[in-house]
Amino acid sequence: MPSYIVADVGGTQIRAACFRADRQTPERVERLATQSGVMPVLDRLFSLINTIWPKNDEVIGIALALPGPVDPFQGILFGAPNIPGWTNLPLRRLMVERFHVPVVVGNDANLAALGEWKFGAGRGHHHMIYITISTGIGGGVIIDDQLLLGSRGLAAEIGHITVMPDGPLCGCGQRGHLEAIASGPSIARWAEEQISQGAASILSSQKRLSAKEISRAAQQGDPLAITALERAGTFLGVALASYLHIFNPTAVILGGGVTQSGDSLLQPLRKALREHIMTPSYLENLTLTTAALGDDVGLMGTLALAQTLRKT
Amino acid sequence: MPSYIVADVGGTQIRAACFRADRQTPERVERLATQSGVMPVLDRLFSLINTIWPKNDEVIGIALALPGPVDPFQGILFGAPNIPGWTNLPLRRLMVERFHVPVVVGNDANLAALGEWKFGAGRGHHHMIYITISTGIGGGVIIDDQLLLGSRGLAAEIGHITVMPDGPLCGCGQRGHLEAIASGPSIARWAEEQISQGAASILSSQKRLSAKEISRAAQQGDPLAITALERAGTFLGVALASYLHIFNPTAVILGGGVTQSGDSLLQPLRKALREHIMTPSYLENLTLTTAALGDDVGLMGTLALAQTLRKT
Repeated sequence: MPSYIVADVGGTQIRAACFRADRQTPERVERLATQSGVMPVLDRLFSLINTIWPKNDEVIGIALALPGPVDPFQGILFGAPNIPGWTNLPLRRLMVERFHVPVVVGNDANLAALGEWKFGAGRGHHHMIYITISTGIGGGVIIDDQLLLGSRGLAAEIGHITVMPDGPLCGCGQRGHLEAIASGPSIARWAEEQISQGAASILSSQKRLSAKEISRAAQQGDPLAITALERAGTFLGVALASYLHIFNPTAVILGGGVTQSGDSLLQPLRKALREHIMTPSYLENLTLTTAALGDDVGLMGTLALAQTLRKT
Repeated sequence: MPSYIVADVGGTQIRAACFRADRQTPERVERLATQSGVMPVLDRLFSLINTIWPKNDEVIGIALALPGPVDPFQGILFGAPNIPGWTNLPLRRLMVERFHVPVVVGNDANLAALGEWKFGAGRGHHHMIYITISTGIGGGVIIDDQLLLGSRGLAAEIGHITVMPDGPLCGCGQRGHLEAIASGPSIARWAEEQISQGAASILSSQKRLSAKEISRAAQQGDPLAITALERAGTFLGVALASYLHIFNPTAVILGGGVTQSGDSLLQPLRKALREHIMTPSYLENLTLTTAALGDDVGLMGTLALAQTLRKT
């Protein structure tokens, strides 16, 4: 039975898997630290793929999820914030030269959207938005059963719309983006600032906070932690209203670690969404739910991309 | 030669035209006030179409541009702010029953985008954003040569993203939308407020202002008028940066009366866009220009829709 090879390249870890063309569970999954020792990242990726290469089966092709902006048409990674030196890397060409099979590449957040749409919480929807809220805010958009890519693959940068002019600095260098207000580190930074200005909190003895600690403190009733998540949830809801006006989808899927804060984040999000939507028509028949695939979303999204190499 | 009938229904005027299937200039154009006397608007539309119906030629179908949110799949107009009583109107069914030919309907701002893409400043682009800035802010988006409609046709409400939380009230009832800051009436309202607070201006003797007067005053060097257009242009630029991050198009077309303010508006717009874009990649090969079709955009966009009824 022919197989697909998929690899999800993160800043910390590379995960690779081999899927039989007729199955949605992998035959084999292997992991490797992305950056360790003297071997270059590219060689580590090559070596991991060699490890899972099936002995007797044909390989239809390879699909890669990459942690940065990608031109999927040219097969080029423009840059990867967490992998030094990976700039304007012609990954498709390098992979084809090495493995002699068709290769497709995509941005990891875009492919997570594709995965949730094809195998997860977005199944059956023709118009869907996926937002992942963790260290950053990214995502992907499905329009008429197609992934939104834009002219060079740079579309769907969901976290980088301005929601607060002259707001906090974003990881991308601009101000007031959704990511600068509602990502995990942004929530933590805001709470730290409040504490440094004298706000009372059970977290006030800690110098550095994480969104996870804030989420736990909110569950224990800590008012500052509750306010911090409320603020993030409200801005997410306001931005989501804008996105519904732009895309008019039938499903919004929320992924990423920060969404595990649960109702402390999601209740203010839903409230702000209801309050900021132009007409209730946008909310009729709208599924607003959390992601279904968990840690598997990377590999499953990359599998969905691999499957575009051949209809099975 | 078979023909198309197209009609652009506005709050003030209905324009209807008859196009031969092989031509892009109309055989005949007729106009009628939308609301006048006792005859209902629908009957006025029927009568205008009767007037231009070709005597001897086959009519392939009718296309309508409508001044409000439309479900193009069901052929229903949800509502038209400027035509009282036109709510949840099944226009396609009513038109088919009356004229016995295929009928397609669309939102006027969406169809203007389609017109500029097919016949105007957006020709040859596969990914394009059209923004019209006049009484409101609307537009349309072309993605991979397709008009963005969303699940029920309510997508591409370009003017209704929140750019200033707790900002001015928008025509739609929400706060801080781009339209509430950068539309013609919003620019005028801001200038009026500044004057009432004592700002010096050659316009200060006037009680009610229009964006046109402000544009003229800016050309004469009036500092308040210049600041008013600068403020609107800056917010348009910030919003445009967000839209480039979302859609990654190769063309942005600016239409509507307010864009005729020229550089007083467009220079701050371009400046804010450059300053707020995440990476210069979004600006490489980007065409940012004003619309080409002028007053004809309504009929030409509706013709583009009509042509989907039959490939010629």
